[in-house]
Amino acid sequence: MKKFFFTVILALTLPFCSVFGQQNLFPSQTIKSAIVNEDNSVTFNFLAPKAHRVQIVGDFMEGEKGTNAGMVASGLVDMTEGEGGLWTYTTKPLASELYSYMFMVDGIATIDPNHPYVFRDFATLTNLFTVPGGYGDLYSVQDVPHGTVSARWYHSDGLKAERRMNVYTPYGYEQSKKKYPVLYLLHGSGGDEDEWKNFGRACQIIDNLIAQGKAVPMIVVMPNGHVGMNAAPGESDWGYYKPYHVKDAPGAFEGNFMEIVNFIDREYRTIAKKEGRAIAGLSMGGGHTCYISANYPDKFDYVGLFSAGIGYRRNENMSPIYENMDAKFAAQFKKAPKLYWMGIGTDDFLYKNVKELRDRFDAAGYPYVYRETSGGHIWKNWRIYLSEFAPMLFK
Amino acid sequence: MKKFFFTVILALTLPFCSVFGQQNLFPSQTIKSAIVNEDNSVTFNFLAPKAHRVQIVGDFMEGEKGTNAGMVASGLVDMTEGEGGLWTYTTKPLASELYSYMFMVDGIATIDPNHPYVFRDFATLTNLFTVPGGYGDLYSVQDVPHGTVSARWYHSDGLKAERRMNVYTPYGYEQSKKKYPVLYLLHGSGGDEDEWKNFGRACQIIDNLIAQGKAVPMIVVMPNGHVGMNAAPGESDWGYYKPYHVKDAPGAFEGNFMEIVNFIDREYRTIAKKEGRAIAGLSMGGGHTCYISANYPDKFDYVGLFSAGIGYRRNENMSPIYENMDAKFAAQFKKAPKLYWMGIGTDDFLYKNVKELRDRFDAAGYPYVYRETSGGHIWKNWRIYLSEFAPMLFK
Repeated sequence: MKKFFFTVILALTLPFCSVFGQQNLFPSQTIKSAIVNEDNSVTFNFLAPKAHRVQIVGDFMEGEKGTNAGMVASGLVDMTEGEGGLWTYTTKPLASELYSYMFMVDGIATIDPNHPYVFRDFATLTNLFTVPGGYGDLYSVQDVPHGTVSARWYHSDGLKAERRMNVYTPYGYEQSKKKYPVLYLLHGSGGDEDEWKNFGRACQIIDNLIAQGKAVPMIVVMPNGHVGMNAAPGESDWGYYKPYHVKDAPGAFEGNFMEIVNFIDREYRTIAKKEGRAIAGLSMGGGHTCYISANYPDKFDYVGLFSAGIGYRRNENMSPIYENMDAKFAAQFKKAPKLYWMGIGTDDFLYKNVKELRDRFDAAGYPYVYRETSGGHIWKNWRIYLSEFAPMLFK
Repeated sequence: MKKFFFTVILALTLPFCSVFGQQNLFPSQTIKSAIVNEDNSVTFNFLAPKAHRVQIVGDFMEGEKGTNAGMVASGLVDMTEGEGGLWTYTTKPLASELYSYMFMVDGIATIDPNHPYVFRDFATLTNLFTVPGGYGDLYSVQDVPHGTVSARWYHSDGLKAERRMNVYTPYGYEQSKKKYPVLYLLHGSGGDEDEWKNFGRACQIIDNLIAQGKAVPMIVVMPNGHVGMNAAPGESDWGYYKPYHVKDAPGAFEGNFMEIVNFIDREYRTIAKKEGRAIAGLSMGGGHTCYISANYPDKFDYVGLFSAGIGYRRNENMSPIYENMDAKFAAQFKKAPKLYWMGIGTDDFLYKNVKELRDRFDAAGYPYVYRETSGGHIWKNWRIYLSEFAPMLFK
């Protein structure tokens, strides 16, 4: 009798090919790239036999600033052409981190065809790689228990919309009967509900900190902070449009934020009181955090401002949310939040804004924890801030 | 008194920039691309002033087969250089679909820098766009109630591993007390647990079919069918490696499949019996579906083989899962599954394998539904099959 088998078994005897997935439109190369060497230097390879000049641009390099290519805050370095048009470049040993890069081929930016991990910032994709041994490990999936990450929609009466958020529930949540504290984690103005999950590595950071015993199990809620969009680009009924900077009605996100908190308290087993809630955010989300926590002084016991987008404005008021901040801060600190945390990089263009807030708090005698790092308004800092902030929560 | 405001409000008065998200490494261009015109033609734009030849390759075109570039099953067409090095190409009006494409710049494949939606097939990223009005709408996020999509880890005793799956729960699941039927949806050998969710558009298809009243609310479980990997590339502790075709121990996925079913029945409110379970898969996953449903004839009342990777093998047996299939099919059909569904394209390289299975079923008098489409072993067909299969379930 004939036996009946997977044809995939036959496929395993063939050279690598992907016809069993999809009839392959585009060729796979056997080249590897973004190879992390033993000394933590990293080698990039790119096949371009007809190119005259191939460069690499990344957030890990010194070198010529690529202003001609419109690039800022990043090195632009020539790669070396080798046999058969294989261009290569090896970095010096790098500190453990999550890095991003692209190639420039005769002036045209292109992602690495041999390393398909990318991050979207607005409309631009860049490649990613991780150097292990330190922060890079914290930002990577490790062999530890993993929480569940859900894309969840909620209805906003205030904004009259169905809106998308990401919710991380820690390992064991589903089988447990207990209630969990919640960290609300807010993105910057260039981001959306996917930003902390993808480039921010929030789920990996929290998984790993819990596994190391440094953070307590917590729910992490990552909503979309733009009232001008209901979901991340490509995840809403706007379809596959070119992402752009949306305009948000001032104060509308903050003013409707308790809808999100109420939704989470209804839908998840939460510690639904001040001591069970933290809120933190980066850049615009740091501003959101400042205003939400001040406007709802009974709701959040832990507050984290990461390179916060805050500042003084001298012309007309735009939302009651931003009014009477001296009185709101006074009320907030009278209720003694357990932690008010601020972090910023010394080169951050918002440094002076955060300094103004610190001066204001110092003058009023409000206690806060201040963390200053090197560098600018960059994700490297925000991941570090989360990794330092999360262990201070709910203890 | 000074007023305290978001600096983001100031940013809105500036030209588009992304400094508020991340200090931007890579420039955004103001060019739009993959523009769907009123007549459903699509215009692509690519700025490359120094290029000698720019081509577009996509799954929507006729034209020269790009064998020189190693490309198959796809047209390769020259774009036209216009003012300032802006290369353009406009298709003829296209049928509503989800399409993929790339550019070739002097022989180097690159994704579209002005359209950041991509799909990963093995190690290759290609751009995506949708032409609305038909299937394209079904595959898009619409303004309808949305289910929740969770990345969830489960423990496999049989495989001695923590493994990742995606679980779709329909809108209303969380607030409902009722039990739901479950569709287990399996990927091909080129894929992983993310494949149906991303390129397969399964969550959008089910959301939309439920909203149209064509499908009943159901849970959809998308596990990883490779026992050689625990999670999709980039989602496991393998890190950001170059994806490759993993080798799977024959029969190990099918033989341990009931662990997944038991996990889902324990963790979700399911109709935990045969009439509440469907299983379907594409290519390798169609083979998985065939063998799982035949080896566990009491467990699944609905079976869908999409371009199934099945076939006869004449040498040594490799797993008891594949033995005695005549007897197993006899037992399965004696228990009269409510639906046994097979679909395949006339150009599919597995057409003859499915024909053999049909002949076998015909000879034995086993009832099944057969759907033949044009085209080959391609995602276009699998999305169509899901959109036709899902409405037949649990009624």
